[in-house]
Amino acid sequence: MTKKTTPVSPDFLYQQIADRFEHLITSGVLKTGDKLPSVRALSDEQGISLSTAFRTYCELEAKGMIEARTKSGYYVSYRKRHLAPAPVESKPDADPARISVDDMIAQVYQHRSDEGITQLALATPALELLPQSKLNKALVEALRTHPASCLNYEEVQGNRLLRKQIARYAVSGGITVTENEVVTTHGCVDALTICLRAVTVPGDTVAIDSPTYFGIFSVLQGLGLKALQIPTHPVSGLDLDYLENSLNNVRIAACLFVPTFNNPTGSCMSDDRKQQLVNLLANHEVPLIEDDIYGELYFGKQRPRTCKSYDQSGLVMLCTSVSKTLAPGYRVGWCLPGRFLPNVLNQKRMTAVSSTTVTQLAVGLFFENGRFDLHMRNLRKALHTQCLQYSQAISAYFPADSKMTNPQGGYVLWLEMNQSVNAYDLFQTALRHKISIAPGPIFSTDGRFSNYFRMSFGRPFDGQIEEGLKKLGSLIQ
Amino acid sequence: MTKKTTPVSPDFLYQQIADRFEHLITSGVLKTGDKLPSVRALSDEQGISLSTAFRTYCELEAKGMIEARTKSGYYVSYRKRHLAPAPVESKPDADPARISVDDMIAQVYQHRSDEGITQLALATPALELLPQSKLNKALVEALRTHPASCLNYEEVQGNRLLRKQIARYAVSGGITVTENEVVTTHGCVDALTICLRAVTVPGDTVAIDSPTYFGIFSVLQGLGLKALQIPTHPVSGLDLDYLENSLNNVRIAACLFVPTFNNPTGSCMSDDRKQQLVNLLANHEVPLIEDDIYGELYFGKQRPRTCKSYDQSGLVMLCTSVSKTLAPGYRVGWCLPGRFLPNVLNQKRMTAVSSTTVTQLAVGLFFENGRFDLHMRNLRKALHTQCLQYSQAISAYFPADSKMTNPQGGYVLWLEMNQSVNAYDLFQTALRHKISIAPGPIFSTDGRFSNYFRMSFGRPFDGQIEEGLKKLGSLIQ
Repeated sequence: MTKKTTPVSPDFLYQQIADRFEHLITSGVLKTGDKLPSVRALSDEQGISLSTAFRTYCELEAKGMIEARTKSGYYVSYRKRHLAPAPVESKPDADPARISVDDMIAQVYQHRSDEGITQLALATPALELLPQSKLNKALVEALRTHPASCLNYEEVQGNRLLRKQIARYAVSGGITVTENEVVTTHGCVDALTICLRAVTVPGDTVAIDSPTYFGIFSVLQGLGLKALQIPTHPVSGLDLDYLENSLNNVRIAACLFVPTFNNPTGSCMSDDRKQQLVNLLANHEVPLIEDDIYGELYFGKQRPRTCKSYDQSGLVMLCTSVSKTLAPGYRVGWCLPGRFLPNVLNQKRMTAVSSTTVTQLAVGLFFENGRFDLHMRNLRKALHTQCLQYSQAISAYFPADSKMTNPQGGYVLWLEMNQSVNAYDLFQTALRHKISIAPGPIFSTDGRFSNYFRMSFGRPFDGQIEEGLKKLGSLIQ
Repeated sequence: MTKKTTPVSPDFLYQQIADRFEHLITSGVLKTGDKLPSVRALSDEQGISLSTAFRTYCELEAKGMIEARTKSGYYVSYRKRHLAPAPVESKPDADPARISVDDMIAQVYQHRSDEGITQLALATPALELLPQSKLNKALVEALRTHPASCLNYEEVQGNRLLRKQIARYAVSGGITVTENEVVTTHGCVDALTICLRAVTVPGDTVAIDSPTYFGIFSVLQGLGLKALQIPTHPVSGLDLDYLENSLNNVRIAACLFVPTFNNPTGSCMSDDRKQQLVNLLANHEVPLIEDDIYGELYFGKQRPRTCKSYDQSGLVMLCTSVSKTLAPGYRVGWCLPGRFLPNVLNQKRMTAVSSTTVTQLAVGLFFENGRFDLHMRNLRKALHTQCLQYSQAISAYFPADSKMTNPQGGYVLWLEMNQSVNAYDLFQTALRHKISIAPGPIFSTDGRFSNYFRMSFGRPFDGQIEEGLKKLGSLIQ
């Protein structure tokens, strides 16, 4: 730790040093229990002020990497148990008489807002992470500045101010579009539905990730489409060889993938593999619906690129929303439908007429005044910290043979239990102890992943969460 | 006019007398040009105050029934040309190379908010008829009173306060339900879509009115459903014999009808015929999706009953929204899905997750504080007046062989031109003169009604509208 830092803006100095410590800790160079230099020693070593040194340790402490021991100093407290990535394949559920996936999902949702429940099931932001009062201001400003107080039908394509801002922000995902290439929707699932309608007819086959967000099965089912499940690796994402083989052997009308921070695995495809995917589909002339709803929630330095950013042929249709970043209740989403813009507009006109005016304009104003950037910096940091805190607690309390992902963004951990554990039984037992989790089988169409579950780290870590995870660990035992 | 009125509340006295005059005028007892008693004579005759007598004539004048001539008194000015109801059947479009219905609809919508257009195409309320500032207050109150400033996902079933109010208002349509039997949606078309999904699978056949709202075709198409068009009479509504015959010969999975103020014909089925329809479908165990979006917009004394009010078997699913009464841009609708509640909830959970929180709560509060009742009384009166004013102008300016409906509620007139008139050509010609109408072929799946068009009277009648109708009349000539 003797190498001096190069001069940088003092505001980011502590962050840079904390990052370096974090790397040393997670990579195992510094081990749990190791004593760290005193604040004064750190200050001297790094050539930084005492307050910057102190802030560095606070940052690491908040993330659960280190702990302060009274009158003794700082020690590494991170319990490294780098669990093996969960394998994709799992035995299909053998008992067809068991509860249906739809009923299971209904049960998970039923207890969504029950009092006293430790909510670990839903991939949504905790209220305290959202910019409540600033958004209220934007909404009132929307009422005030809109010529018709937002009572009128909005343009079918969406509020123009919002579309301009979406086009501006798309640059961070590597995309260059104008507002005329953006269509707003009633949330992300609505965007997926509209895009699917634009490029498929009932009876068509659509390739999807496995496992994937259960809502996607239902959308396909509702449109009379068949799902072809493509295995997805918990770290590298989609199995491209499997997909290529399928493209050569099955008529696939469209693909619907979550390449960045897949739900539930958290996997993020590398830039190279995203480009490969786009090229592969361009060669086969197959549209790619890219669900990018978690794309802005990266823990690293940079936003991962989107598949859309590699799109030369206009075949990629990016879909996302503000439900995971700003306001689930606003129901504001959008898509960038590439060459399918006329079809998408037609589908939206026919089925939704238009989206809610006032929430679209409020989000547009929130983007415009720069508050979105500021909010997202805080949200990403909070989620990263929570991810590490939850992971550590799971490492401490769960059986030694459980496995867990190590996501670099998003809201969820994907856990594999011993094969003898039935996740649906665990879900029901946990619910009796007032803990809600999302059982694995809801993430496949055919009852796979019966010993897996998804856990959200959307709520700030506290005593109740820790108790919940401890109890969950003992229930799994 | 010498019979004395029985004593009633003075506030409603003038209305009662005005109604009686209106009846005498529309039924032809009093003819255009007839002189009416002076205000003083009316006061004496009816035993009412001078101001009540004056108010009576003002009411009739506002509706275009009578006119004041300077220094001469009041005269009947209503130009009675009671046009024959438009027949249902029309020749199918012979030229398959013509523009598609979808493209036609897109063109109608394209000019929705163009500056300087005389907008007669869209069945929507003019902004000045909506309670803008009162709704703004309700929306700000929603933000203030909701524990999470409406940022959170709402319950899947919908905001509870709004559902309670919907259940309360359903009584006026003859329906007794609790809030647990209501599901809110993202507008009425969304409600129709969810209900269809709950009771059909792709490939099924759904019976619909002919003509009917074009959005219904697209919803069916998007869900992979087949449309069976049932003829609808412009006055009495659905042809029940035709329907019964179809039920005996075709497997119909569901019916989707607009029994009250059908769009575009404006027809309203009588109570008896609604009951017959419900019984017929109960005998065949076929669900009825009742689109009641215009049900609250009656011109008569009482709200027409709904089919849902006759439902004993739980097969009727009523769908509606506030888009025609309060705020199109809010996207707040709902359904009462009867026995299909679990399926409907499942469909909503899977595809929409939930509806916009803040607009749902704002509408709930607006209902709760009684402002909805007051607003609706004003809106109904305004629409009735506008309907009469538009009808009179059409009678004055359109060719003698054109026919027009005489709706008792809703937003639209349905006009049949001479067979030589092509409505799509008329639409294009009118657009060049900055007048927008809705050509007949967009209301059928197979290009029928090629010499019909629909005209909205949603905008208050003024000089621009009158000029537009005059021009339109001359273009038809």
